[in-house]
Amino acid sequence: MAPYIATTSAPVNIACIKYWGKRDTKLILPTNSSLSVTLDQDHLRSTTTSRADSAFEKDRLWLNGVEEDIKPGGRMSTCIAEMKRLRKELVEDVDASAPALSTFAVHIASYNNFPTAAGLASSASGFAALTASLAALYALPCPPTALSLIARQGSGSACRSLYGGFVAWNAGTLPSGLDSHAVQVAPETHWPDIHALICVVSDTKKGTSSTSGMQRTVETSSLLQHRIKNVVPQRMKDISAAILARDFDRFAEITMADSNQFHAVALDTSPPIFYMNDVSRAIIAVVEEYNRVALLPENGGKRKAAYTYDAGPNAVIYAPAANMKEIISMIVRYFPQQDAFKDPFGLFGAAGAGTGALVSGFNADVAKIWEAGAVKGLIHTRVGGGPRVLSSEESLLGENGLPSKTA
Amino acid sequence: MAPYIATTSAPVNIACIKYWGKRDTKLILPTNSSLSVTLDQDHLRSTTTSRADSAFEKDRLWLNGVEEDIKPGGRMSTCIAEMKRLRKELVEDVDASAPALSTFAVHIASYNNFPTAAGLASSASGFAALTASLAALYALPCPPTALSLIARQGSGSACRSLYGGFVAWNAGTLPSGLDSHAVQVAPETHWPDIHALICVVSDTKKGTSSTSGMQRTVETSSLLQHRIKNVVPQRMKDISAAILARDFDRFAEITMADSNQFHAVALDTSPPIFYMNDVSRAIIAVVEEYNRVALLPENGGKRKAAYTYDAGPNAVIYAPAANMKEIISMIVRYFPQQDAFKDPFGLFGAAGAGTGALVSGFNADVAKIWEAGAVKGLIHTRVGGGPRVLSSEESLLGENGLPSKTA
Repeated sequence: MAPYIATTSAPVNIACIKYWGKRDTKLILPTNSSLSVTLDQDHLRSTTTSRADSAFEKDRLWLNGVEEDIKPGGRMSTCIAEMKRLRKELVEDVDASAPALSTFAVHIASYNNFPTAAGLASSASGFAALTASLAALYALPCPPTALSLIARQGSGSACRSLYGGFVAWNAGTLPSGLDSHAVQVAPETHWPDIHALICVVSDTKKGTSSTSGMQRTVETSSLLQHRIKNVVPQRMKDISAAILARDFDRFAEITMADSNQFHAVALDTSPPIFYMNDVSRAIIAVVEEYNRVALLPENGGKRKAAYTYDAGPNAVIYAPAANMKEIISMIVRYFPQQDAFKDPFGLFGAAGAGTGALVSGFNADVAKIWEAGAVKGLIHTRVGGGPRVLSSEESLLGENGLPSKTA
Repeated sequence: MAPYIATTSAPVNIACIKYWGKRDTKLILPTNSSLSVTLDQDHLRSTTTSRADSAFEKDRLWLNGVEEDIKPGGRMSTCIAEMKRLRKELVEDVDASAPALSTFAVHIASYNNFPTAAGLASSASGFAALTASLAALYALPCPPTALSLIARQGSGSACRSLYGGFVAWNAGTLPSGLDSHAVQVAPETHWPDIHALICVVSDTKKGTSSTSGMQRTVETSSLLQHRIKNVVPQRMKDISAAILARDFDRFAEITMADSNQFHAVALDTSPPIFYMNDVSRAIIAVVEEYNRVALLPENGGKRKAAYTYDAGPNAVIYAPAANMKEIISMIVRYFPQQDAFKDPFGLFGAAGAGTGALVSGFNADVAKIWEAGAVKGLIHTRVGGGPRVLSSEESLLGENGLPSKTA
């Protein structure tokens, strides 16, 4: 008999309206709604294989080839238990012929195709891939929204990686969290023109983890409550409308304002939390200058790029595809690259991105030219789809039920 | 006949509750009240000599030996005109024998004893010294509160330099601004134990001027209004109570929170405004760690230092005098000094501050050791008194009515 096994991949997402603060730390219920863009799995993804077997002694999980401890009552344990519960309730209890997979232990192997050193949060794509692979293994008749309730309990922002395109995480109001799930605002096919440039920024300082940092903000910031009650609800409506209208200028305005406000409430925390450093600030100065030029009436009067920063110094710059060559040239000029720019969309041809260039009218003095390595890598990607079920050829578990691939 | 001439000096002040935003840009009426500590003129001061003479053709002003243009309707012009008006109304109109100095032109020479390169705002001490010297010249029977109404129209925070000690600037509510003036919360003699260490931080980036920056925050920050209405009023009460009770722990807690919140609303501005850089952040990390150790029950459970940052990267660290040696040792350890520490209070003796040291239990990893020059100077001072009238020997104008000293 073929083993009960499934492999899926899930995407990274980067928020435009930021999640910062939990009203329930166990269920991971947020203090405000958030909204993100799902990035293309062709470039960044977590892949997870799950296998259920009556011969397995206990649930085990390997991350990038290294076994992780599944702590009882911890986040991974909760997700696996919830998926087994759904298997029992939605499949086994209604179809007596279905194998009792919910009673079997599982082995799970997960890989990220981006290095941890890239500073990209892997918990969102990781928990989304875990949830999606167990859903495939268990043949659950669940829409992504239902699965997002479980991924959320692994890592809040993971719930948004269950959908492609433009995804809202509604904060909800129920103590149970049953209304705190992801919904798709628009699929990637609605606005495939949205590209992203991830600028991986070197940092010597170890940052505050988002889990502890956000609760310190909840406890000590006098500005956060105002943000939650009076700012985010309107921004969620406004950016959803901008996405539906494919209005990049408005999308960019809100995205940048919300990134800055998230970092403002982090700074309004005691002790204060800083995620951006001087390189991050310089990228902001450069993008703001690029938009200042773009906003001139003779240049069309609309913003052409939007930066956003999560809980770290890396920038993600969203822009319509047509602007990406200018943006990459600009970034490369101020932040010389040690390695040649990997050009997945073939913007630069054989000559490569070179030493960069600025658009006409740009005030070059808004930032200095940094030493090579200040931005240690650039990843060009775009909006993409939700989790994918992969063929058995891509399985990460061997016939012996152990990882077939090491990190 | 002796010339009509007066020389005064005025102090620098550094706010604990920050002024950021005007409700009237012409009268310089703030959106919120603020509170500062006046620093000792023995270390930092502006000195101004004013002379009225019927032979002078027009009002003239020299700053550090360089003549400045007194623009009609500008801030200096407004202050001089207001002082002449007070001379007429309060002196000449009530005493017919008083010389009609209000009809004479004035020559004014002003010097700062700290270099512009130190990055310390000289506008507060400068306009306070201007106002105080004209008040002495005109023999105005005015308390500092009345003079503060005029200094405020030169530079908002100048109104707080008319008093020594701990000084509030009440925002007021009248459109005329007549209730927007400084009041002394407590004189320097109430709590002379408060010392200050100014850490002059190198910065490659030219910052946004506070005049333009604060109005951009008023126009674009969604958090500022909450700060104005719901945060600052309570903090003004709380820090005043802490000062009256000489409660440094509470004073420090509020001072640091308000510095961080000021920079948070600057960041919540579009485009965002950054005044602190990576060195500023590192100083915060070091002071926070120093307080973390101090807050341990076995160490007394109270904060021992408070950082605050104005519209620039420089830190000012307030602390009781007894902690200053530890603090200077700590700062010197992380930020090696190119020049020997000037030790005005003789804390270190002949050996000097050396290469620094940390208190027991301090986690040294909270910051890296920076290259010499990252903090390019340290100034140790303390709370001090209000403007002083100086003798004619300290006059900055020669007998010919022109500056006797060049920069």
